[in-house]
Amino acid sequence: HHHPQRSAGIIGAAFWRGQSRSGVQEGPYRIRSTGLLERLKLQGCAVKDYGNLVFDDVDESSVGLLKSVAAVGGANRRLSEAVKAVKMDGHTAVMLGGDHSLAIGSIHGHSAAVGELSVIWVDAHADINTPLTTYTGNFHGQPMSFLLHELHSKVPVLPNFSWVKPCLSAKDLVYIGLRDVDPAEHYILKMLGVKVFSISEVDRLGVARVMEETCDYLTTRGKKPVHLSYDIDAIDPSVTPATGTPVVGGLTYREGVYITEHLSQTGLLSAVDLVEVNPQLGKTEADVQSTVNTAVDLLLGCFGRLREGNHLTDYSLPEP
Amino acid sequence: HHHPQRSAGIIGAAFWRGQSRSGVQEGPYRIRSTGLLERLKLQGCAVKDYGNLVFDDVDESSVGLLKSVAAVGGANRRLSEAVKAVKMDGHTAVMLGGDHSLAIGSIHGHSAAVGELSVIWVDAHADINTPLTTYTGNFHGQPMSFLLHELHSKVPVLPNFSWVKPCLSAKDLVYIGLRDVDPAEHYILKMLGVKVFSISEVDRLGVARVMEETCDYLTTRGKKPVHLSYDIDAIDPSVTPATGTPVVGGLTYREGVYITEHLSQTGLLSAVDLVEVNPQLGKTEADVQSTVNTAVDLLLGCFGRLREGNHLTDYSLPEP
Amino acid sequence: HHHPQRSAGIIGAAFWRGQSRSGVQEGPYRIRSTGLLERLKLQGCAVKDYGNLVFDDVDESSVGLLKSVAAVGGANRRLSEAVKAVKMDGHTAVMLGGDHSLAIGSIHGHSAAVGELSVIWVDAHADINTPLTTYTGNFHGQPMSFLLHELHSKVPVLPNFSWVKPCLSAKDLVYIGLRDVDPAEHYILKMLGVKVFSISEVDRLGVARVMEETCDYLTTRGKKPVHLSYDIDAIDPSVTPATGTPVVGGLTYREGVYITEHLSQTGLLSAVDLVEVNPQLGKTEADVQSTVNTAVDLLLGCFGRLREGNHLTDYSLPEP
Ligand SMILES: [Mn+2]
Ligand SMILES: [Mn+2]
Ligand SMILES: [Mn+2]
Ligand SMILES: [Mn+2]
Ligand SMILES: [Mn+2]
Ligand SMILES: [Mn+2]
Repeated sequence: HHHPQRSAGIIGAAFWRGQSRSGVQEGPYRIRSTGLLERLKLQGCAVKDYGNLVFDDVDESSVGLLKSVAAVGGANRRLSEAVKAVKMDGHTAVMLGGDHSLAIGSIHGHSAAVGELSVIWVDAHADINTPLTTYTGNFHGQPMSFLLHELHSKVPVLPNFSWVKPCLSAKDLVYIGLRDVDPAEHYILKMLGVKVFSISEVDRLGVARVMEETCDYLTTRGKKPVHLSYDIDAIDPSVTPATGTPVVGGLTYREGVYITEHLSQTGLLSAVDLVEVNPQLGKTEADVQSTVNTAVDLLLGCFGRLREGNHLTDYSLPEP
Repeated sequence: HHHPQRSAGIIGAAFWRGQSRSGVQEGPYRIRSTGLLERLKLQGCAVKDYGNLVFDDVDESSVGLLKSVAAVGGANRRLSEAVKAVKMDGHTAVMLGGDHSLAIGSIHGHSAAVGELSVIWVDAHADINTPLTTYTGNFHGQPMSFLLHELHSKVPVLPNFSWVKPCLSAKDLVYIGLRDVDPAEHYILKMLGVKVFSISEVDRLGVARVMEETCDYLTTRGKKPVHLSYDIDAIDPSVTPATGTPVVGGLTYREGVYITEHLSQTGLLSAVDLVEVNPQLGKTEADVQSTVNTAVDLLLGCFGRLREGNHLTDYSLPEP
Repeated sequence: HHHPQRSAGIIGAAFWRGQSRSGVQEGPYRIRSTGLLERLKLQGCAVKDYGNLVFDDVDESSVGLLKSVAAVGGANRRLSEAVKAVKMDGHTAVMLGGDHSLAIGSIHGHSAAVGELSVIWVDAHADINTPLTTYTGNFHGQPMSFLLHELHSKVPVLPNFSWVKPCLSAKDLVYIGLRDVDPAEHYILKMLGVKVFSISEVDRLGVARVMEETCDYLTTRGKKPVHLSYDIDAIDPSVTPATGTPVVGGLTYREGVYITEHLSQTGLLSAVDLVEVNPQLGKTEADVQSTVNTAVDLLLGCFGRLREGNHLTDYSLPEP
């Protein structure tokens, strides 16, 4: 329960074209201004800020139903390179979104640097539609289809996406918190035999056993670096309302934090995405603060903060 | 996890004389207008709407403390016939209340059509006062006393109730969610040895084990058709405030839905009551919507909706 | 499940100088006016009201960082005598705070009357800073350091504290609900090997197993009288916001009540503190009411109220 030296490399990705509601690009700013970096340092974590990515101005036009195809492809290419660089520098990568389409670049770049990964995807949604099954056309509902080897033949060629190579096996993926899954997505999950702890399984097993089974499942075939892709909408909208596609019946704050506490203790966490915080969508400032504070607490949990407390190994108690 | 063909026969029972607060008669309208029938069809369920019952104008006078005796007796007689007809037509009966006194007619009619039943009563209250132990005089706190063989000798003769014959054994009844039980009710529950999972037991065992034990308990003596009588006040008032007798410390949304998911998978669910939604009692429209949306989600759960997702057996994934 | 005769001796301690936010001295008044005493009697508990303590006017000056040293010392001396007297009279002592610095006097007086105690401390905070580790200077964050034998050498001599003698062994102490623990506190807890069920352990084990393990742990070395020191901030701020140092991610109302239900059934509960209710800190009257109602429900739970219901042993069911 003493923290080993940890080191976070922070990338802001103020990108919202993977979905339709402006505001999610303010996530990195709000999360930073709530003191993430200072608080990480206070808990003994080394921090390097890689700043916010600057994305090229690109054509925002649609391809059929698919919105902002070239923009999504281009932004993710840039992010992939940035995450790869952070990993090459030896940090645990932290990607502050922005929308969840950014997981394409984040996981791709992570894998480019370290090889085979395990991915833990905490979300109300599976985000595994293919460009042919989506009925919204939003890429934040599709990132996983670009990443999985098993879905390569189901994904069409798209402008600015040629750089993306599938880099993840379905057996190295675990979902936690699902409760709004499209029929096509459910079909894919069953077809591929993906390990899913929907909210129903969290109800049944409790979050502690879910985390145990998640880690057991992922490490039976060797301990790969873990990529945690955390969509804030996994948490219940009563806690994190400022997000684009809230779904009732989510994880409690406590369950959400427990997931990060558990993973930080495994020593396997190698990159974290924190996405879909949209400060424009809270009804009140308190809504926004609750959402952003929760996002920060999740990230602090990823870097060793424990609710039982922490102290440095060299602490000595004063005497009168 | 694929749904077998299900078929719902919907009865609206816009009746509120079993308690004192007007508004609960608007439940069927609000639940229907939130899209219950369309959403049941979308998830592959056949639906027949039997419309709303028309109740005779009857004498609303009291018998001692007991309020609207003849009205309650008459409305339940009508409802009993309607539920019997729905069951004769082969549907799973759905009774949209209205107040919980309607369980007299619903369970009576269900049993008249199919014989011996198991009843799962999900409620903050036991609703098992007799007309001699009630101190409010409201019949929505008494329905179970009319239904149990074991309480027959404790219930006096009342106008318009002569058609009611006890049809349920105490050993075929399980309560879930109790947290506001009168001394007389507690005495009765202990005297009869009724299986009760109060909120304290839900805390202790978790909702998944409660449902396992509930089903094990009820099926040890053979698999009888299950009547689920769901009082919306079983759920916590932070989620479902628009109801007449809210009680703090209730089931979470997730626990509430889990109960329906579990029962729908058993294949034994034969009738459902959804009662005590009172759209006039929310402080805000958001309160009312949260209450009604939860009611609808509970009913969708009864007909096979799973939070992990669903897909039709003949789904085929598009390729480029 | 029938209640044995219980007897509560109620002491109000309208004291707030152990922290910096006025209002917490209104706790005893608000808890009383919500009907605590009447409701205890209704559930068959004998009640003796010892009124509110009158504290001497004392010097409010600081000693270094430490605020209101003499006032805290003096008030606790008075309280210690009062709790001792209640115990000598044979009641279960109920101390209505006021802030949590009052636990010094309450536990001290309890032990002076009955000898060795077990203490169950339910709180977001460990309140185990010494006067030398505190960085706020508030005594409500330090009471445990004065009570533990093991910390005696770490606590300096202070004006009006010479009467305090350590009376508790670290092995007779259990914490429940911790989630905001200072580094020095964490060091002390680990150094002394104190049994802690932080919120993380409540997540992992569930509140029922926490209570089982708590009681097993405390009774392995003999069944000592139990002192329950309940800080209302243990409960989640969404339920009990009217308190001075709220911390997100707390116990649910249900978990909070479960703790009291469980302890009341052990027959070992000998004194209860209910502290840190601050009626001036709710944003709305509903906030205050929710906080105070929860405090009352916790106390009713301590004296035998069960959510499954209760009835007197001589109850007899009326017949027609
Ligand atoms: Mn997502
Ligand atoms: Mn999502
Ligand atoms: Mn009811
Ligand atoms: Mn009820
Ligand atoms: Mn405290
Ligand atoms: Mn506290």
